[in-house]
Amino acid sequence: MTRRRERASRSASGNMQRPFRQPVYRYPPIAVISEDSLQAIHATALTILEEIGMKVLSDRARALYAAGGADVEAGSDRVRFGRDMLRNWLAQAPSGFTLHARDPGKTLQVGDGHVLFASVGGPAYVCDLDGGRRQGSYAEQCDFLKVVQSLNILHQEGGGPFEALDLDARTRHLDLYYAQATLLDKNWQPQGLGSAVALDAIDVAAISLGRTRDDMRDHCVFTTIINTNSPLQLDVPMAEGLITMAEHGQCNVITPFTLAGAMSPVTLPGALAQQHAEAMAGIVLAQIVSPGAPVMYGGFTSNVDMKSGAPAFGTPEYTQAAQISGQLARLLGVPFRSSNVTAANDVDAQAAYESMMSLWGAITGGANLILHAAGWLNGGLTASCEKLIIDAEMLQMMAAWCEPPRVTPETLALDAVRDVGPAGHFFGTPHTLARYETAFYQPMVSNWDNYDTWLERGRETAPVKANRIWKQILSNYEKPPLDPAVDEALNEFVARRKRCYLGERV
Amino acid sequence: MTRRRERASRSASGNMQRPFRQPVYRYPPIAVISEDSLQAIHATALTILEEIGMKVLSDRARALYAAGGADVEAGSDRVRFGRDMLRNWLAQAPSGFTLHARDPGKTLQVGDGHVLFASVGGPAYVCDLDGGRRQGSYAEQCDFLKVVQSLNILHQEGGGPFEALDLDARTRHLDLYYAQATLLDKNWQPQGLGSAVALDAIDVAAISLGRTRDDMRDHCVFTTIINTNSPLQLDVPMAEGLITMAEHGQCNVITPFTLAGAMSPVTLPGALAQQHAEAMAGIVLAQIVSPGAPVMYGGFTSNVDMKSGAPAFGTPEYTQAAQISGQLARLLGVPFRSSNVTAANDVDAQAAYESMMSLWGAITGGANLILHAAGWLNGGLTASCEKLIIDAEMLQMMAAWCEPPRVTPETLALDAVRDVGPAGHFFGTPHTLARYETAFYQPMVSNWDNYDTWLERGRETAPVKANRIWKQILSNYEKPPLDPAVDEALNEFVARRKRCYLGERV
Repeated sequence: MTRRRERASRSASGNMQRPFRQPVYRYPPIAVISEDSLQAIHATALTILEEIGMKVLSDRARALYAAGGADVEAGSDRVRFGRDMLRNWLAQAPSGFTLHARDPGKTLQVGDGHVLFASVGGPAYVCDLDGGRRQGSYAEQCDFLKVVQSLNILHQEGGGPFEALDLDARTRHLDLYYAQATLLDKNWQPQGLGSAVALDAIDVAAISLGRTRDDMRDHCVFTTIINTNSPLQLDVPMAEGLITMAEHGQCNVITPFTLAGAMSPVTLPGALAQQHAEAMAGIVLAQIVSPGAPVMYGGFTSNVDMKSGAPAFGTPEYTQAAQISGQLARLLGVPFRSSNVTAANDVDAQAAYESMMSLWGAITGGANLILHAAGWLNGGLTASCEKLIIDAEMLQMMAAWCEPPRVTPETLALDAVRDVGPAGHFFGTPHTLARYETAFYQPMVSNWDNYDTWLERGRETAPVKANRIWKQILSNYEKPPLDPAVDEALNEFVARRKRCYLGERV
Repeated sequence: MTRRRERASRSASGNMQRPFRQPVYRYPPIAVISEDSLQAIHATALTILEEIGMKVLSDRARALYAAGGADVEAGSDRVRFGRDMLRNWLAQAPSGFTLHARDPGKTLQVGDGHVLFASVGGPAYVCDLDGGRRQGSYAEQCDFLKVVQSLNILHQEGGGPFEALDLDARTRHLDLYYAQATLLDKNWQPQGLGSAVALDAIDVAAISLGRTRDDMRDHCVFTTIINTNSPLQLDVPMAEGLITMAEHGQCNVITPFTLAGAMSPVTLPGALAQQHAEAMAGIVLAQIVSPGAPVMYGGFTSNVDMKSGAPAFGTPEYTQAAQISGQLARLLGVPFRSSNVTAANDVDAQAAYESMMSLWGAITGGANLILHAAGWLNGGLTASCEKLIIDAEMLQMMAAWCEPPRVTPETLALDAVRDVGPAGHFFGTPHTLARYETAFYQPMVSNWDNYDTWLERGRETAPVKANRIWKQILSNYEKPPLDPAVDEALNEFVARRKRCYLGERV
């Protein structure tokens, strides 16, 4: 991080941000279910894959599964998996890997006790206090990326915060990739819908890093979200995106969308057994394509509101599902992805407590990637500017919590207690004065004014302050340096590919 | 619970409340520090008590300490504690006990893997959306108690939500006790400031239960908060309150107010070592008075905002302190008290995320009593009606999370997955229909409407909905039945004691 941007961050929040650094887990994860129950879920998933199997719509994926030893019914799209075959391919998947960024100082470790926080990816809308919820433009998308780049607690951009609806749908992904590759120097997520869109991402990343497409095979830069069509289906675009990414050494994050009561059984163990089956099927496909390819186990099991059928998020069931998903991922020995989610429509107390339920589930579930870690609102339909800032505060707090205090003679402070004695005060003591500036977490959003001061200063609530911080960060944004030749090559690539997409359809 | 009140609860929230039931811990607590570090904090606390000791302002307490084997300096208020003496008295303290209520169905278990949630106790002000922050009246205090009584997730009333400033300060505690004994049939907290005020509580409880004062010795109904004057001081009212409660078999919750950087060292291990020393000194006094008397270890260590000196709450350091306090309490083998706290001045996202940080710290720290579990705002200066309802929702969610899903053939739902098959839907299946009404947590406050419905219905935010629920619950309140003879005896007692207090000063 340059000194210039460090200053900008400090000025934007009124406080120094924590430096760019991944939290490392030092407390054991919470085991919600016993080892016996975990094995029962795993065994049920194995039975699902053996007896029922997956509906695989891609010819190429079915051929790969057959070559890998799966039982592919002739003239059918059904693929079934024997237990030995599964075990052998699952054993190929690595427990962790390195994820590169344009700034080598922002290289990430995935798995092996590390966690990384990614900004929200995939909503349809954007919202802020000024304009309410609306369809977003490319300019707004770029602004969002600039703030994501500026927040040190976000280790990865999450794949486009919302759709840029002023752009042609056929080539919109190219404009996003260009923005990601040039406005950010931290890691970013691509889109995995089909082979062409995936290859475009790999090409853009390669150009931005001065590499060739082939060079990318041993240089992982992508964690690509691959959603199965629960229950038990893998569609063509997702299968082809997965295959393309695995072929090029990039990571697939297999994430079944198993909403209990809709796309999976209404009972949590059943929903998780189905999630586990679908995740294993995806992980195995990546290993067949490229043994040892980086993969992640994505857990996204939640429940529907049984009154309306709408998905609910940040519920107690969601939290348990995140923690059990972590247990299941560790059983397979692969890194685990979870999320920070809420169904709230406003950046109010509900948004915060549902987000906290999911964040605590993810962190104590041992998640290695927390997607949508900042900015998700409205069940994932909307990216919120204020929620991005408030989530960043929560993430900073969680990161600080992940660092246990060091217990040493200096921190046990027996001499300070002796010096102060009963009924004294520690404010002005040498022990305090030597440490007070860095002793505690300094908030970005939280207002700790006493009530009268808070009134005098205008009764600012958390979303209003977050709106102000958003604007300060945006106005202080500085584009990370980029070789003009690389920028030119990226522009040429995007222009050429746009001609291909538009030409195909003219 | 009568059927009438059950119906009222359902109608008030639009959903059935969970029945009155204490959560039981089924997941191991989070150990933030190693066993070695824990022993280092304990050893530092022993050294503090041995070398520095406590300043004890009460003659009676010093005499009791001397009789118990402590080293009491002649002509001084300093009391020092040898290690053997401490170990012997600490060994007398029970690991758990039963806490009785007027309704025997609301009897509580303290310790031994149980947790109970208490409403906020002790603020100066009340606030709601209608009237803002203000000095509260007795009528408002009674309304607050009625809502606390009606919320099943609150197992205990926390000792008066705010001061009734329309009442005479000399006898205000008697009016509060009368309200607690008659408006509630669940357990309530007394005030422990001095022997007379403590005895009044014991007498009111005895009358309400048809017992004598002596009968209360083996019938614990009180968890009394005893705050040491950190650093290392025990004042006269607190010491006398403690002695009186212990003499009558009631529980003292020894809670040092060790704000790191002000009343304790700026480093968390030092603050916790001092907290541990003060807590042990209080626990030992209770055991000297009455060996085997129920006690609790209270953890309230937080940090100050080093810019303003104001206390901060729900910080990462607070969360770690709660969890380490749990480790220290378990080292002594006594039940642990923690809290749900925030410094926010508004019931906004900050209030919710700071509360969630402290709640998760308490629950994963193994707290057996969570005081201020609902209603605390503004650093504890204000009891908020809307926060009471929103906190009740968070507590219900935490209670649901504490119950792990049962993993059985029925919940693993292999047959349902077989029936639905790939690309099907689980909404209308028999497995779903048989379970959907009770499958998931039903929220009281959370709004899960989709965005358009939410707009149509008036964009209700969490505090606005909480305000509405508060009023519904209050209007549905039904006073628990009370024998008129008991009511008369209570009134007589209060009138007689008021004459004593007022007479003393006329």
